Amino acid sequence: MTFSGPVSLDTALASFDDLWSPRIVTRVNDYDVRIAKVAGEFVWHAHDDTDEFFLVLDGELTIALRLPADDGRESAVTLRRGDVYVVPRGTEHRPSSAEGASILMFEPTGTVNTGDHEGDVPEHITRTTGSAL
Amino acid sequence: MTFSGPVSLDTALASFDDLWSPRIVTRVNDYDVRIAKVAGEFVWHAHDDTDEFFLVLDGELTIALRLPADDGRESAVTLRRGDVYVVPRGTEHRPSSAEGASILMFEPTGTVNTGDHEGDVPEHITRTTGSAL
Repeated sequence: MTFSGPVSLDTALASFDDLWSPRIVTRVNDYDVRIAKVAGEFVWHAHDDTDEFFLVLDGELTIALRLPADDGRESAVTLRRGDVYVVPRGTEHRPSSAEGASILMFEPTGTVNTGDHEGDVPEHITRTTGSAL
Repeated sequence: MTFSGPVSLDTALASFDDLWSPRIVTRVNDYDVRIAKVAGEFVWHAHDDTDEFFLVLDGELTIALRLPADDGRESAVTLRRGDVYVVPRGTEHRPSSAEGASILMFEPTGTVNTGDHEGDVPEHITRTTGSAL
């Protein structure tokens, strides 16, 4: 971890416009703190090796889920500004935001945002392990 | 990770008044997401085995630091609402907040908030690995 100063999330969010293209704000041990702007639908995917933490900084985020406890039936949680949620590892999920949202995520460095999603991704999505601010 | 629903940080913060006594909001793999209300001064300490992530949810937090890059001379960063900062592992630091603040932290489960601080802690501080909401 290289020493660096405080980062304003508002300033960081104002520095890019790309949707579904997480920026790495800082690192904590071998984890990234990533922020992203999102609107519309992401792809269904799971991360077999890690939980995924979401904090909504602005707007509203819906996460469709296929939880093992529900025998894989589709359900959804809706997160508003200031809400946090953890998608358990191995859980198929699809984030979306009808009106747009800004989110913060905490996940192991190197985690691919599309997880185990196979094949192409729609043009509005960047398949990435996060890029620098 | 047990499945549980979204958590509103505002609701979580409204559920306790203790200062310098982190509550565990959720877990991400073997990390805790903790929130705390703080006011006045914490104790100088370091975490030799982990970086420590701070996000200011409300108010203003000052972190006094003795950075190796500064030959251990004391410096400080001030974080306002929406600012994030990572104290690198092994770095002596002392959080404080003259007017009070609410903060969110990521750190490995089991991390003691007072780190390597030896001896007693002042009565306004709880030495803890975080408690349940």
